[in-house]
Amino acid sequence: MAVYTHLGAEDLARLIAEYDVGELVSAKGIAEGVSNSNWLVETTGGAASSGTRFILTLYERRIDYADLPYFLGLLDHLAAKACPVPRTMHDREGASYRMVEGKAAALIEFLPGVSPTRPTPQQAHAVGEVLARLHLAAQDFPQTRANAMDFAATATILDACGGERLATIDPALPAMLGHARAAAALDLSALPQSQTHTDLFPDNVLMLGDRVTGLIDFYFACTGPMVLDLAVTHAAWCFDSDNAYRPDCGAALIRGYQNVRRLDEAERALFPDVAKGACLRFVASRAEDWLDTPDDALVTRKDPMQFAKRWQFYDDSGAGLLVG
Amino acid sequence: MAVYTHLGAEDLARLIAEYDVGELVSAKGIAEGVSNSNWLVETTGGAASSGTRFILTLYERRIDYADLPYFLGLLDHLAAKACPVPRTMHDREGASYRMVEGKAAALIEFLPGVSPTRPTPQQAHAVGEVLARLHLAAQDFPQTRANAMDFAATATILDACGGERLATIDPALPAMLGHARAAAALDLSALPQSQTHTDLFPDNVLMLGDRVTGLIDFYFACTGPMVLDLAVTHAAWCFDSDNAYRPDCGAALIRGYQNVRRLDEAERALFPDVAKGACLRFVASRAEDWLDTPDDALVTRKDPMQFAKRWQFYDDSGAGLLVG
Repeated sequence: MAVYTHLGAEDLARLIAEYDVGELVSAKGIAEGVSNSNWLVETTGGAASSGTRFILTLYERRIDYADLPYFLGLLDHLAAKACPVPRTMHDREGASYRMVEGKAAALIEFLPGVSPTRPTPQQAHAVGEVLARLHLAAQDFPQTRANAMDFAATATILDACGGERLATIDPALPAMLGHARAAAALDLSALPQSQTHTDLFPDNVLMLGDRVTGLIDFYFACTGPMVLDLAVTHAAWCFDSDNAYRPDCGAALIRGYQNVRRLDEAERALFPDVAKGACLRFVASRAEDWLDTPDDALVTRKDPMQFAKRWQFYDDSGAGLLVG
Repeated sequence: MAVYTHLGAEDLARLIAEYDVGELVSAKGIAEGVSNSNWLVETTGGAASSGTRFILTLYERRIDYADLPYFLGLLDHLAAKACPVPRTMHDREGASYRMVEGKAAALIEFLPGVSPTRPTPQQAHAVGEVLARLHLAAQDFPQTRANAMDFAATATILDACGGERLATIDPALPAMLGHARAAAALDLSALPQSQTHTDLFPDNVLMLGDRVTGLIDFYFACTGPMVLDLAVTHAAWCFDSDNAYRPDCGAALIRGYQNVRRLDEAERALFPDVAKGACLRFVASRAEDWLDTPDDALVTRKDPMQFAKRWQFYDDSGAGLLVG
């Protein structure tokens, strides 16, 4: 969470001038995003844009620039269908991103709202509805992107960590390795697909009260089973900070989703297994980061055990979770 | 440059509710300030405030909370006299700051503008004018604050570093120790005083084109010789990144200042010595930080030699600098 690249006022003004958004009025580096530099930028406004505030993102690493047309095109596609996602500004030549100091940069609509820390059931309900709308709106999006963090990748990452090293984090972690292999063997081919966010933590949702004003940070978006996206969101939204399940939030999220798009039989049957796989995906990336990050680094490491405990909840609950 | 304290949306909303500024609409942690946490906050607006955007500052360390009434009161005093500084919002009980999680927090007006990286002479001229206006407007401010980084403190810091350790940074640094002792012996008592910013680097000035829209970051403000403030600004604004003097900027800054407030004979006579002392103040704080910061820390250390080289310029120029 930082600004990794220094861009001075003159650099920023030059970049902004490539867009029909008026002149630079203000620019503040913001502490958001784990791998990009971001500025909250204000301009005098241009003929082509209704707004005067934007998020300028400079893509630092982790992101394959070949994926940018997918990510940014998906935002445009969803925004055109009235989903609450930020539009990408296009420059005077129509490009959705430009190169600045050898890095890709995109100018993205600013959306109001704040991310809930402890979501209410009403907020979970609203997020479920918006997620289903996103899935329906994305179904005719013409591009596709493979999920680089699918269940097979999860198992590969945990294998590479190895049971011994996983045990140094927590004695309960090595058991997740076998569960990840089991998840990788699941046949998800019968599940209906769309473009999916796959990282819809509360941090990535802006709200005003119970209304969703923005879904952001689409840099894990990919083509895949819609129920996996719902399961990720369920695992991310419906537990307390001590990982106790919050049944009111869980039920509200599913109800909100199904208000807009009813899950089919195959999705309902596989939900607990998919949710377990979703938990393992975060166990894997967090375990990898944990082992890669020195103990004394200034970066806060996310505890992989958080999602190992949530995995246990889904294993215990089984098919009962979606009844009703 | 970071957000040191996590405040969730609910915490921020609760804090904002203590002010008559409406409800929270947006909050982004911003990468500004070296020792405070800052958020750019938007609200729906309140009866008592014309604006809807604010900088929320949480004071983390370095700042003595007993000084907050001086810093925040000075902003109010200057803003009331139409100086371009942000006003402090007062809460419903009239307080200029509140305690949050054991830390002081202030809600400060957001001002437009960006900080120039390479100022033009026109911009230096505008800053000179505004600095003189600030000095005149502050003369009837009823509070005082001692300069914790005066020339005596500078000499003490460099003494504590010691010549041997200073030499590990650069062989030219130990000589600065004697110069700092000479500066500490200067008699500045005849120089006219006011409240002074004493840290007016381009980073702390917001501009739109050639117009100054905001002076910010008053956390080194203190009572002292006005010409010292001008000298700090001169040393901070009028050199290239390779520390070559930019005579057009230097002349423009002084001309702008004297358009509003003419320097007296004593100030003109002491200007080169005061400028050398101002350079040593930054040599000292940067040398101390340098020696305190491990080589492999993620923090960028500022090079104390930058201001040792500027000291040399003032030593070479002598009294000729203000002629004309």
